[in-house]
Order: sequence, then C-alpha cells, then structure tokens
Amino acid sequence: MALKTPEEYKEGLRKLRPNIYKFGELIQDTTTNPNTKGTVEGHAQLYAAALDAEYADLFATTSNLNGEKVSRYLSVNQSAEDMIANCKMKRAAYHLTGTCTGGRCAGYNAINSMWATTYEIDQELGTDYQERLKKWLSDAQERDITIAGALTDPKGNRSLPPSQQEDPDMNLHVVEVRDDGIVVRGAKVMICGTAAAQEIFVLPGAGYREPDKDYAIAFVIPKDIEGLTIVEARHPSDTRETEEGFDIPVKMGGITQAYLFFQDVLVPRDRVFMCGEFKYSGAAVFNFIMPYRAAIGGCVAGQGDIMCGAAALIARANGLSTRAFNEKLIRMYINNETTFGLGVAASALGKKHPSGAWLCDPMISNVNKVYVATLPYETKMLAEDISGGIGETGCMPSYRDFTDPSYGQLVRKYLKAASSAESRVKVARLIEWLTVGAGVPGCMHGGGSPEGAKLLIRMNSGLEKSVEYARRLIGLEEEIAEPVKK
Amino acid sequence: MALKTPEEYKEGLRKLRPNIYKFGELIQDTTTNPNTKGTVEGHAQLYAAALDAEYADLFATTSNLNGEKVSRYLSVNQSAEDMIANCKMKRAAYHLTGTCTGGRCAGYNAINSMWATTYEIDQELGTDYQERLKKWLSDAQERDITIAGALTDPKGNRSLPPSQQEDPDMNLHVVEVRDDGIVVRGAKVMICGTAAAQEIFVLPGAGYREPDKDYAIAFVIPKDIEGLTIVEARHPSDTRETEEGFDIPVKMGGITQAYLFFQDVLVPRDRVFMCGEFKYSGAAVFNFIMPYRAAIGGCVAGQGDIMCGAAALIARANGLSTRAFNEKLIRMYINNETTFGLGVAASALGKKHPSGAWLCDPMISNVNKVYVATLPYETKMLAEDISGGIGETGCMPSYRDFTDPSYGQLVRKYLKAASSAESRVKVARLIEWLTVGAGVPGCMHGGGSPEGAKLLIRMNSGLEKSVEYARRLIGLEEEIAEPVKK
Amino acid sequence: MALKTPEEYKEGLRKLRPNIYKFGELIQDTTTNPNTKGTVEGHAQLYAAALDAEYADLFATTSNLNGEKVSRYLSVNQSAEDMIANCKMKRAAYHLTGTCTGGRCAGYNAINSMWATTYEIDQELGTDYQERLKKWLSDAQERDITIAGALTDPKGNRSLPPSQQEDPDMNLHVVEVRDDGIVVRGAKVMICGTAAAQEIFVLPGAGYREPDKDYAIAFVIPKDIEGLTIVEARHPSDTRETEEGFDIPVKMGGITQAYLFFQDVLVPRDRVFMCGEFKYSGAAVFNFIMPYRAAIGGCVAGQGDIMCGAAALIARANGLSTRAFNEKLIRMYINNETTFGLGVAASALGKKHPSGAWLCDPMISNVNKVYVATLPYETKMLAEDISGGIGETGCMPSYRDFTDPSYGQLVRKYLKAASSAESRVKVARLIEWLTVGAGVPGCMHGGGSPEGAKLLIRMNSGLEKSVEYARRLIGLEEEIAEPVKK
Amino acid sequence: MALKTPEEYKEGLRKLRPNIYKFGELIQDTTTNPNTKGTVEGHAQLYAAALDAEYADLFATTSNLNGEKVSRYLSVNQSAEDMIANCKMKRAAYHLTGTCTGGRCAGYNAINSMWATTYEIDQELGTDYQERLKKWLSDAQERDITIAGALTDPKGNRSLPPSQQEDPDMNLHVVEVRDDGIVVRGAKVMICGTAAAQEIFVLPGAGYREPDKDYAIAFVIPKDIEGLTIVEARHPSDTRETEEGFDIPVKMGGITQAYLFFQDVLVPRDRVFMCGEFKYSGAAVFNFIMPYRAAIGGCVAGQGDIMCGAAALIARANGLSTRAFNEKLIRMYINNETTFGLGVAASALGKKHPSGAWLCDPMISNVNKVYVATLPYETKMLAEDISGGIGETGCMPSYRDFTDPSYGQLVRKYLKAASSAESRVKVARLIEWLTVGAGVPGCMHGGGSPEGAKLLIRMNSGLEKSVEYARRLIGLEEEIAEPVKK
Repeated sequence: MALKTPEEYKEGLRKLRPNIYKFGELIQDTTTNPNTKGTVEGHAQLYAAALDAEYADLFATTSNLNGEKVSRYLSVNQSAEDMIANCKMKRAAYHLTGTCTGGRCAGYNAINSMWATTYEIDQELGTDYQERLKKWLSDAQERDITIAGALTDPKGNRSLPPSQQEDPDMNLHVVEVRDDGIVVRGAKVMICGTAAAQEIFVLPGAGYREPDKDYAIAFVIPKDIEGLTIVEARHPSDTRETEEGFDIPVKMGGITQAYLFFQDVLVPRDRVFMCGEFKYSGAAVFNFIMPYRAAIGGCVAGQGDIMCGAAALIARANGLSTRAFNEKLIRMYINNETTFGLGVAASALGKKHPSGAWLCDPMISNVNKVYVATLPYETKMLAEDISGGIGETGCMPSYRDFTDPSYGQLVRKYLKAASSAESRVKVARLIEWLTVGAGVPGCMHGGGSPEGAKLLIRMNSGLEKSVEYARRLIGLEEEIAEPVKK
Repeated sequence: MALKTPEEYKEGLRKLRPNIYKFGELIQDTTTNPNTKGTVEGHAQLYAAALDAEYADLFATTSNLNGEKVSRYLSVNQSAEDMIANCKMKRAAYHLTGTCTGGRCAGYNAINSMWATTYEIDQELGTDYQERLKKWLSDAQERDITIAGALTDPKGNRSLPPSQQEDPDMNLHVVEVRDDGIVVRGAKVMICGTAAAQEIFVLPGAGYREPDKDYAIAFVIPKDIEGLTIVEARHPSDTRETEEGFDIPVKMGGITQAYLFFQDVLVPRDRVFMCGEFKYSGAAVFNFIMPYRAAIGGCVAGQGDIMCGAAALIARANGLSTRAFNEKLIRMYINNETTFGLGVAASALGKKHPSGAWLCDPMISNVNKVYVATLPYETKMLAEDISGGIGETGCMPSYRDFTDPSYGQLVRKYLKAASSAESRVKVARLIEWLTVGAGVPGCMHGGGSPEGAKLLIRMNSGLEKSVEYARRLIGLEEEIAEPVKK
Repeated sequence: MALKTPEEYKEGLRKLRPNIYKFGELIQDTTTNPNTKGTVEGHAQLYAAALDAEYADLFATTSNLNGEKVSRYLSVNQSAEDMIANCKMKRAAYHLTGTCTGGRCAGYNAINSMWATTYEIDQELGTDYQERLKKWLSDAQERDITIAGALTDPKGNRSLPPSQQEDPDMNLHVVEVRDDGIVVRGAKVMICGTAAAQEIFVLPGAGYREPDKDYAIAFVIPKDIEGLTIVEARHPSDTRETEEGFDIPVKMGGITQAYLFFQDVLVPRDRVFMCGEFKYSGAAVFNFIMPYRAAIGGCVAGQGDIMCGAAALIARANGLSTRAFNEKLIRMYINNETTFGLGVAASALGKKHPSGAWLCDPMISNVNKVYVATLPYETKMLAEDISGGIGETGCMPSYRDFTDPSYGQLVRKYLKAASSAESRVKVARLIEWLTVGAGVPGCMHGGGSPEGAKLLIRMNSGLEKSVEYARRLIGLEEEIAEPVKK
Repeated sequence: MALKTPEEYKEGLRKLRPNIYKFGELIQDTTTNPNTKGTVEGHAQLYAAALDAEYADLFATTSNLNGEKVSRYLSVNQSAEDMIANCKMKRAAYHLTGTCTGGRCAGYNAINSMWATTYEIDQELGTDYQERLKKWLSDAQERDITIAGALTDPKGNRSLPPSQQEDPDMNLHVVEVRDDGIVVRGAKVMICGTAAAQEIFVLPGAGYREPDKDYAIAFVIPKDIEGLTIVEARHPSDTRETEEGFDIPVKMGGITQAYLFFQDVLVPRDRVFMCGEFKYSGAAVFNFIMPYRAAIGGCVAGQGDIMCGAAALIARANGLSTRAFNEKLIRMYINNETTFGLGVAASALGKKHPSGAWLCDPMISNVNKVYVATLPYETKMLAEDISGGIGETGCMPSYRDFTDPSYGQLVRKYLKAASSAESRVKVARLIEWLTVGAGVPGCMHGGGSPEGAKLLIRMNSGLEKSVEYARRLIGLEEEIAEPVKK
C-alpha cells in the first residue's frame, strides 16, 4: 500500500542532503532541529490521519492513475465531492496540528493545476507534458511523499514585467535548455513547509507575454537538488522554539516559510511540465489559485475552531461561563462557517475540465479569498477579547520565570484562577500562539492578495448582465453608455 | 402537461371568492386591482419561466410522485442538486420580478417540511398524514397552483406559551375535531404573496408542549375558504401603486404581506397533516426554516444583482464611469455571492432524510440567515452611495410634476444629465424601490429572526468538540469545567 | 426682543406669495397644506424651544452685531463653545421634531460661511460684501426669520465644469449685472425645508475657475421672489401625509426637499455677497461644509436617540425586556455618540478666523461626514432588528383597516401584545417612519458625498508627516520616493 | 527648574535597588539591560520632549501647586484644555517612541484620580489624604520622576469578591496598620513601564463593600521598596531584544509589562491615600479610567499614524504608489481620528470637580474605550494588507541570515525591490513590530475591558430619556413597562 507511516515519512526527510539555513546555521536534521521539527511533526500527523479510521476518508482517496489508495494530497480532484473533501480535510488538518501544513497543501494544488494546464498545452501544441506529470505523480503516490508548492517570485520592481527588470533574476527563469533538462536561476520566496517537504513543485507567475517566455516554467524537484539553497524566514516569537517549556504551547505543529535560491539548478527533463509556453502561465496560476482559495476556507475555519475552543477554555480557567461570551463565540463560528461554506460552494458550483480535473467556481473562490484574508483578524480579536489581558499579547512571565526556584512560586500563586496556574498559562499561550505568536499563519497574502482577488471578482461579476436585468425590470429602452474616457 | 401558462394561472385566481381587503375595501379581482396586480404579475412570470427554454431547468423539474414535468415550486427536494437548483431559481426569480415571490416560495418549503415531518409522525404513531399529503400534492402538481405558506402567529405576549395566553386565539388552534375535518380559529400574520396564491399551506409554531397540543396543526386550504378574511398590510410608498406613471418603476413584480384571520374555518380531513402531535411541531418548523434559510440566500443575491445593475445605470446616467465605483460594486457582489454561496453550501452539505427529502446543513443554513438579515443593509447603502442624492430617498418630483404641462419642462430640463431625464428618473426610482420603496422586502425577520438563528448556531457549533481539539494540541490534562451557576 | 413665537413665525409664512408646487398643484398655505405642514410644525418648535427655559441656552444666543438675544440659527459662531452648542442644538432639534429641520440649519451654516468668506474677499479686493451681509443679518435677526440654504446645482454632465455644459443653466449663474442687482438663471435642487423658510441663502459650487466666473455667486432672497418656482420632491410614503390617522405617526415634524427653478430672478444688490469672485467659491463651500459636517453629527445622534427610544418601546410592547437587546442598544448608542462626539471634537479643535468666525477642524469634520453617511444605516438596521417583523417595513394594515367598522376589530385583536394594539402600532409606525418612511432624512449625501469627504481626509491626513515619524523611529536614511508615473 | 534631562532621568533609575527579573535573572541596570532599555529609552524621550521647543507646550505645563513649569505627566488637569493637551501629548508620545510609555501615563491618571477622590474622602470623613497627596506630588514634581500606575489585581476566581477568595492575597490588601504606615500583601499584574519607573502609584479595584475594606487601599511607593519583587512578562518576539541588528527595528522605545509581588511591604504613612474607605474604591477607579479612556485615544491614533507612515514607506519600497492604497490609508486615518477625536470630545464635554480636577464625560470616554479596543485590529490589518506578504508576519530571514557571509548576498539580492534591501527589510520589520511584534501594545484590555465599558455606556445612555422623546413625538399616552421578571 502506498500510504506511509509518520515514521517512514520522517525517515524520508532524514535522507535528504541538508540545505536549509536559519540564524546563520545549516540545519542538519529537520526532524529534530528546534526550528523545523514543529512543522515536521505537523506534517507527520497528516500521515497518521490517512491511516486512522476516523480520518482516512478525508486524508486518503483512490488514485485516478492506478486505483490504489493514496494520500488525498497526491490526488487529482475529479468531482465536486473531491473538492469538498479537500475543504473538509484542510479544516481537520488544522484541528490536528494547530497550524499551517503548507508543505503538502500547496503541492496538492500544484498537481491539480498542472493536470489541467499540461492537458491544454499538449492539446494545442502537441507536447507530452501531461505524460511526464502522470509518470512523476504515479511514482510520487507510490512513495507517498510530501510536496511543497512554490509560486511567489521576489518580483523586484512591481511595476515592471520579468523581462524588463534591472536584475533578470528577480523572477525565476530558465537560463539553459539542455537535452537532459533545463537550468534555472532565481528565487521563490515565502514558501510554506519546505522544511517538511521532500520535493518542491514550482509554478510560474501569471500574465507573462512573449518577451517573458523564459519565465514560463513549471517543474518539480527534490528538495535537496544541487544548486538549491534554502533560508528560513523568521516568524513571531520563533526563538521560543529553542526554549524549554510551554511558551510554545503546541509541539505537534509549527510554521516555516522559506526563501529558495536557485543558483543554476539543473531540472531533469521528465520533471519539467512547462518551458516557454508563456500563454499558459496564466492558466497554471489560475488553476492553482481557484482550488486554493476555495479550500483555504477550510483551513481558516479550522483555525477559528481552535480559537473558539481555546477561548472557551480560557474563559473557564478565568472562572467565567462561556455563556457570557455567546455573542462573541457565535460571531467566531459564523466567520468559520463563512470561509468553510464558501469553499464548499465554490467546489459544488465548479465544472469538470476536459482533462478530468474539477475546476472551482472562480467567482466564489475569489470572494472566499477576500474573506480568508480579513475575517481571521476579527476572529483573533474576539479570541483575545474573551481571553482577558493575559491572552491578548501573552502577557505572562516566561516558562523559566514560572518555574524559577526562588520566585517561581509567586508567579504560580498569582496566575492561578479557576484552574491550576499551569493549565491557565498553557491555554493563554495557545491564544497567543494563535493570534500573535509562532503559530499564526499569514492568511492575508497567502495564495495571493485580496486586491488581486477583487479584480477577479469584478471580472467575473457579470455587471452588464445585472444591468440588463435592471433595464428589463423598468422597461428602459435608452442605451446609457460608460462615459468616454478622455 | 402539468405546467400552466401565466394566463391560465391568472384565470385560476379570478375564479376565487374575493376575501382580501386593503384600505377598507374588498378587492374584487387581484389580477387587476392596483394593490395586488404587481405581485400577481411577478408570480405570473414564474409560470412563464417554467415554459421558457432559458429558465425551464430551474423552474421546472420531474415529480417524484408520477415522473411528470412539474413546477419546481411544487416538488420535493431529493438531492443536493435539487436544493442548489432551488437556490439558483430564487436568484433568477428576483432577476425576473425585482421583488418577492413569496406566494410560491414559502409553500414550496412547507411541502418539503411536511414531507419529512409527516413521514416521521406516521412512522411513530401509525397515522396516514403522508398519504394525505401525497394525494393533495399530486393534485396540486396537476393543477400547477400557487401555494403561499403561513407560519407566523400573532403570538400576543411573547413571554408566554400559546396555552397560557390571556386570549387563546393569539396562536392558531383547533377548536373542534370533526369526522370530516377540523375547525380552526386564530390568525397568521405578515404572510407574503397570498394575494397571488390559490391555496395556503399552514404550519404550526415550534416548541409546543402537551398543554399546547391544540396548537400543533398543519394543513392546506383554498385561499377563498369560508371563514377566512384577509387584510393586506401596507408597505412603504404603497399608494403609488394606484398612481399613473413610473414612480413605481417596476410593473412586473410587487409585494403583498397579509394578515389572515381564521374565524372557525373548517379544514377538510384530507387536507390536515398534523393535529395534536405537539412533539412534531418543532420538526415541522425546523424542516421548513433550514431549506428556507439556505435558499433565501439566492433571493437576496438576486436583489443585490439588481442593485448592482441599477447602480451601474445611475452612475452612467449621472455621467460617471462605473470604474470609479469598483470598490463599492465589488463589495456589493461579495455580499451577493456570500448569501448565494452559503445557501449552496448548506445544500451541498445536507443529508437525505429517510422520507427521501433532502435536509440542509443546519449550521450553515442558520449562518446564512444571519447574513441574509444583515448584508442587504450594506448592499442597499452602497447602492444609495453610488446613486447620489436623488437615489437615496427618491428625492425627485413626482411623475405628475415631471409631466406637468406648465412647469414639467423645468423639472425635465434640470433632471437631465448624461441620459434623458426620463431614463435617469426611472433608474433613480428603481434605486428607491429597491432600498426604501415599495419593492423592498423585509429580509431581517422573513423566515425567522437572526437572533433565533444565532441560538441555533450556538447549538450546532460543537463548542465542546473545539475545546477537545484545543486541549489535545497543548496536551492539557486538567478538566476545566463551566463554573457552577448560583 | 428679537425672538418670535411659533405663531408669529407661521404668520410670516402665510404672508408669502404661494410659489411651491407638489403633485401638480400650487400649495396655497404651507402651514396647513398636508404636504408641508409637518415641516412647518417642526420648524415652529425651534421657535418654541428658544423661548423655553429648558432649551433657551441652546436655541438662543447673543448677537455679535448688537448684543441682543437672537436665535442661534441666525448667529455667527465665534468660539468652540458656540460650535459645541450648535452640535447640541441639532441633537435636541431632532429630539423635538423627529426629523430634519433643514430650513434653519442650512441657512445658519451659510451665514457663517459667508461671514468668513466675504471678509476674505473684501480684504483682498476691497469690496463691501461683509457690510451688506451684516446689514442683512442684523435685519434678519430682528425679524427672526427662517432661512433655508441652497447649494446643490443640477450639474448636468458631472465630468464637465459649469462653463462647458451643453446647457449653461445646469449650474446657477448670473445672466445680467445691473445697478440695482443681478439677474440669475438656473436651479438649485434637493433643498431641505424651503417650505418652512421665509428666505433662501444661495451659495455657489466649489472649484470654479475663470471661465466659470458667472457661476460664482452668493446671495439671499425672499422665498417668494418673482421668477422663482419651487417644486417639492416626493419622499417615501409621502402620500400618507394626506391620510387620516397615525400611519404618519409624527405630526410635529416632517421633511420637504425642493427643486428651485430660477427663471431670470432679479436679486437686489445689497443681498448679493459674491458675484464673479470665482477664487472664493471654494472658500464659500468649505466654510459651509466644515461646520455642517461637524454639527450634523448632533442631528444624526438625535435620530439615533429616537430610534433607541422607539426600539425600547416596541420591545416592551412586544412583551420583551430591553435587557435582551442590550448589546444592540449599546451599539446604537455608540453610533450616536460617535457622530455627536466627533462633531464636538471638530468644534473643540477648530480655529478662529480673522473675521471672528470659528472654523472647525477640517480633518475631523470630514471624518464625521463619513460616519454620518454610513452609521445611520447600521443604527436603523438595529432598530428594525429589535422591533420584529412589524417594524421592519411597517408591515401592518393601514389606519383605515385598523379602524374598519366590520373587520377592524380583527386587526386590533391580533395586533395586541403587551400593550394596546393602538400603542403598539403607533410605535411600530415610528420605527418605519425613522427607517424607511416619510421621516427618513438622507444622511448619505446631505452636505456632500462621503467620497468627497474622503478626498479631503486624504488631503488633510499629513501622510508625509506620518512617513517622517516612521523613518525617524527606525533610523531610515534612504529616501524612498513615490514611483514615477508613466 | 523641575524638568529633568533624559540623562538625569536615567541616572535616577540607576540608583534604584535592582528588583526586576526576567528569564530567571535579576536585571542589574534597567537602562542597559536589553530586556528593559527599550522602554527606558522611550520614557527618556518624554523628558527630552518637555525640553524641546516643538513639544514643550504639550509635555510640560504649570503646576497648580506652586506655579512652576513641570512635566504634564505630574500635573492635575484643571480644564478641558488640559485634558485635550493630554490627548495630544499621548499621540505625540507614540510618534516619538513607536510604542507604549505606560510608565508615565498610568501614573498621571492615578494622580488625577486620587486628587478628586481624596478630596471627597476628606470632605466626608475628615481625613487628610489630599494633604498627603499634595505634599508627595509637590516633591515628585520637584524631582520630575517617572511614576507607573498599578490597578490590575490577579483576582483569582472572577465570580467572587476579594474577601471570599480561597486565597485572600488574590487582591492586594492591607495586613497590618501601624503608626508609621501600612503593611500590604498581594500582587498587581500586567503593569506597564515599571522597568522605566522610579515610583509606582497603586490603586484599589472597584466595587468593594464592607467585608472587602482591607482591599480598599491607595498609595505610592518607590519602585525598589523592600518586599517588592517584580517579574517582567514576556511579549511577542521579545528575545529579539537581545539580538544584534534590526529585527527589532525601533531602538527608541519598547514595552514592558510586569507582575508586582508585594510580600508584606511597609508603605510609609504619608504615602497612603486610602486605607479602608471601601465606598471610595469605585471613585478611585472611575476617576482613573475616564481620563484614561479619553486620552488613550490619542495614543492609539499615534499608533495608527505610524502604521500609515510605515505602510506608505513599504508601498514605495515595493515599487508601488501610495495612491493605489488611498482607500485603505483613508480608512486608517479615519480610525486614527475617531479615537483621538472622541478623546477630545470626552475632554471638551467634561466637568470640573469640586477639588479642581477636570472630569471627562463618562459616556464618550467609554465609547472611546470600545473603539480603542477594536479599531486597532482593523488598522493593523490594513497596514499588513498594504505591506504585502513580507510585512504580514515579518516573513523575511533574520538579520543574522541577512548579513551571513556566505549566503547573505542571496538574501539581500532577492529582498531588493524599489529601495535597497536593507531599507525595505527595516520598514517591513516596523510593520511587524507594530502589528504582531515586540512593539504591539495590548489595547483591548489596557485600562479595562470593552465589555466593562459597554456596561457603563448602557448605564449612561439615558435610555428612558430617549423613550420619553419617542413617546412625545407620537403622542403616546399609554405606559408600556418592562415585563416583570419571573
């Protein structure tokens, strides 16, 4: 069977050449290094879930390549049901890990995007990209590997296209096409979960034209490929990960976001799924972001669920009834169901692509992106509101002070309320972790900016159709045109 | 074929005994009386749509009783697809009529509610209610009639149950059970579209207990049944309906909301679907409101679509580009897709009832109710914002002044901007109609209050499950209970 | 003493030549005609308040011209205290009338604007405008007259300045300058309270340049001046004003908004305060809108106060405790205090103009405009939320049905809850009047649009100053400029 | 002259006995220790500002005790102008320090609160508390010391009053009254700026009754008094303070929030301003929170100003025009002016207390608390929105990686956009510092919770007065009472 155990997964990680740095040091083993082991533990639980009767229906599915049971993260969505299961899986993944598991989720979207996109390229240009993708994917399913997805280029001056940048490397590009593969140079930035990934699926940016054709590349590489240097970004309170105790309250999850530097990396030919077909760079991106923006609603709902649970716990630990916070808890759950529900709706209203992939509704996917970018701020605010001052910015002495042999008993004495001091502090640290701490994922720009989503909403809104409805209702015959721009 | 034409439908209305009053007068013919003909025209279009190739897939479906093509408004939803079609139909119905068509939509929900509820009663108590319902429904499908739905009781003192009210009639109740039927007394209030309906499906309130069992009644009656007196409520600017001209800008739609007074009405036995089974009054109501709260999202989205179209038209009529209002239009469309999308999600996440009826997800249905109650206020505000002062409260001289032989030319001269004065005024009147005028439906309390929905959200939220997720994430072992209430 | 009684005020109105039309008919006596008597009653109460010990401090003040006790509406604000009293007076005026009293409030702002503006023109150009204004104002104070203010031009094609309009009359302009005065042509639209006014203070639009100089005019005229034709706009449910009973629940207030048509009106020379000085048209407008946008916060707070009171009454009439609505009532009061408080702040942070007039803080005045335009939508929504279905769109049978000799008893029986049916209906009608009815003032665009206010906020924001603070904090030395626009 | 220089101030701090701990270690010198020197630098700038011509009017004033020029932080507010200057000073203090300067601001409020409260106690009970306060204050002004304010008790089980807690120390209380002073035991928690303070002003909680009278104590102590142990709470990303480089971007400000443990501290008699007068504990708190909740609006506005400046800088560093973000920047400034303006309004509408202190308007002060607690979340969201992904969670490699000799050049190459990489990173770190980083102050619960403020809004709302206005408008005669609670 294709499904690996958490231990087999970690074993796979340990075999990779170390090429990740943080704080000026090379991380020898991501499964044990304090800066990365949290996210590895998080991803390990996704493996456990696929083997757990309670979660298997969500985390595993049947391969469309060979009919085997495989991780859903390595599958092609072929129906509304598949996409809805994706939404539910992301919600459950957050429940299980308390943080981002981008090392699998972005790769999953990349597979699905390129499934449809390679089909289109092949149909029109007679290439064999989908065959390459199928072969690689079949093997990946067999190995049950974790695949990060990398989209974001450094971009440089945002008002210029890639080909007109002063420094041509500001977007990842091909510098040599060889018989055995392509050589690429540049960077991808803010990539989630590469520390927990075995391979990385790389997609181009959107909107490329003829002069930018060297930038229109898609491929997948082993994380430890020659020429790839990875530097982890820092995140709030990240040094606590190296501390003892519970100031990092969650040990079974964690975030990493990496900068990937490609210094003339040779990508083998059969791992290349686009090279120069600039017209399809848009499709590659759009086919990625639509399901991403739908399913992320499940992830954000899962975040919110945990915030509700943590808020209820802290209220009780403070000696207060959750009934006193009903209005706030209800607003939090409304937010949760909004992003989850709109993800489900975008799934249900999707369409089947000729390649067999299921495409989400673009209007509702993008509406969801706007909510995903903004509602968590309110949900976090409400969690902090309920928690009282100690949760708001984690305003408690450190674990070291909490356990200090001389004055630690004072700290503990006065942090006690309706539960033990330790329980209360742990819960308050969870609130902090979820709202301003080391577990807080960036939902505003993850998967693209809300402003970009708004443009797509405007494009998909069918305003002129709405105008026609209105005209008909009042029997308006005169044409009323947009004013001519001067 | 079961589908009737608009003219056949109106013919059916004309045959009914007149028993509707407004402004102290009996309305002889609802199809021509200015107070009711707007809503009749609106409902007539639903008939036209079922026969129109563009809309037939939404407005008609196949009967589960006899396999015939019937109006969707007379069908039993049996799948997520049926419920999603319901959501889409309600959005389209608003596009076509510019207002509420509650005369069919509430009856549709009542049929579906009682399909499941009678099944449950029969299963447990050995009654034959579902058989009665099937027989009546089959006949109703054959006649393709319009069926209003009536839930809301006057209620009297809201802090007391029906059986303890000073006046026992404050909730509709049975006063005599006879061999040939039951005699009922009381009232139902604020019932939409009865003026356009041929029959009325009556449901009980929820939460009834043993002493309230006389109030646990469900049945369907011809609108012109003996003993039933109907008085139409007024609505904003309703007297304009009797004026000439375009101050009522929409002629193919309109609202009525009626007070129904039952003075010892004898309901024939085979039209009674509940009588005394108080335990099921809750099911009757919940099975009604869940699909209602899901599908109403489509109706509210349709309202919003028309507001977007009207806002674009008024901007252009004012000489301005819609581009200047992109941010606002996008927010309006986000609101539209929110209620529509959550309705779709509640449908997609529903479950099949043993009776074969499709039940919507209660959590998301109720979340949608909260949005349906509140987002339209923002959408209306944005429509008024875009329209400028004349749209905000319809601040223009009346049609009579607009066409006055002496000074009308002054009015017209100065109301002209980038279109003719007449077109501009018509569009501005449409904004008024949609936001503060005779077309504005009450979305806050229609189908129940948002506060009631919030209680159901709290009940369905699974807070303790969220607590468990949070506990697991931080390895919390101590039980932290709700404080004991004193 | 200068202060007139309500009866003297009405007497003054009765003496004017009839020149107001509505519904195709000339209104002979505005104090008794059903379309106008409501607003006259409202304005009459302002006279009563100035003579009432409880309100005199707000509604009367001491003239800076002659030291006499005069109506505050005819005074020049000379200190923060004066402006704060203005804010408080507007709040009280709404409490007393339940609606707009724009017939005095806009004139008051016009007086203050032109006090500062004429001073500036005279200083620079050696004109004698302020002398004319003083003379007229002194006389107006003596007569204690009601003075509407008129700003809004029809504007025609909004993308063109006045001088380039196809029809030159789309903005009011001078067509002849004579020794004894000026002849003006054009229109002013959507002018509040002219039906209740004795004179009208006319201001130009802003942003005029040399070619538009004929449009740069300011003057005051008797309402019944030759050549002026007034047509009243309609407003929601306005025909109820001619009906018997309580469907219009407030008899001591009401709205009118008029279209004023100037067909070569000769304005006497000593009533002209600007004629051609186009550079000052901006000052005339800005000096008007700053205090307007500050003090309107008091008016909107007063609206909200009444909505709170009405909401509390309907809750009780429904048999419910206001405690159940605390969260909503608190939000309503927060909204009320926001617009009131920001008006006070704009007053307190103002500055004295060399002319002696007190100018409000432009930043906070404009911030307040944005709130004034938007918060009432939420406050109204909350009032409707609390009121239940009957308040939402006034969903009750008409007064005529309520009192119908045959079935009126049914209507009354079933509208009774915890108060008499009549009291409950009156309160519900008040909710309707305040939210979608004949009393609802247009706060979105009154005194200019929120978008215009936002531009002024951006201009006054001191963004570059904020940038400097940020640069200093992080010791940033590199200049980072705006990108050059291509 | 009483005003000290920054260096004199630091000198004063260095003379204190070390009694502050963090991370298990005693801080020997708060002016140099990395955990505390940021906040000391911040407070030092307040001294510089009082001596700087540009800021002196705000930061210094004239003592009401001796007519000398003193720090405003040590003054008694005696007029609306004083309170408005307080609002402006807090805004400026944030501009200057980029963070909280609670070490002076809370003490300032405590002085003002006890000025009024001691007057009341003395008047009624014949005590000499105000005399003691005056004497101490006069001396404090002379020494120009920094005085933190301490209100929040640990509280323990929040459903029980102090005297019924299992552990009597959960609220600070007197354990012995001696001739030379009182001995106190317990703790105060989450106290801002004690690291930067020389003395601490301690106030009781509110709502104490007779059995709690030992808890009704107010006094001021030297920070290094015997028996007082201070443990600093941690805050987000606080360990960066010990790192080299610009990951903490602001060196001239910083936060500390301390837990103060009183182990039988002897407070000298002439520093005690309340001891047992439980009836006045409410006044002590309310007189503290009203001006606090007014003036904090200036602080929050200052935060927002810096966020606007930082957002403009990052937009430009990204190569984008701030014009593209006008809507968002305007919303941010609207939020800034809202809290600042309402603070000014609460000041302007205040009243003079018989003691000579100026009391703020309680209604608007509490409305402001609600905004202060919530608007910053939106402002932060908008700052993150504008900044793009790198600002959102500070998603960039650490300073150590940025400057790494081997791969640092890659990091720098790819972080460059329209400015140098270093400038861009510094600005992005400022966004992080302000929104989720080491500079983020907790505005939700600082100065009390928004829920507490809402209760006070409800109490001060005058709902019954609003009801009376509504009744009068519709001529309602029937009394409609609250339903009787069962």
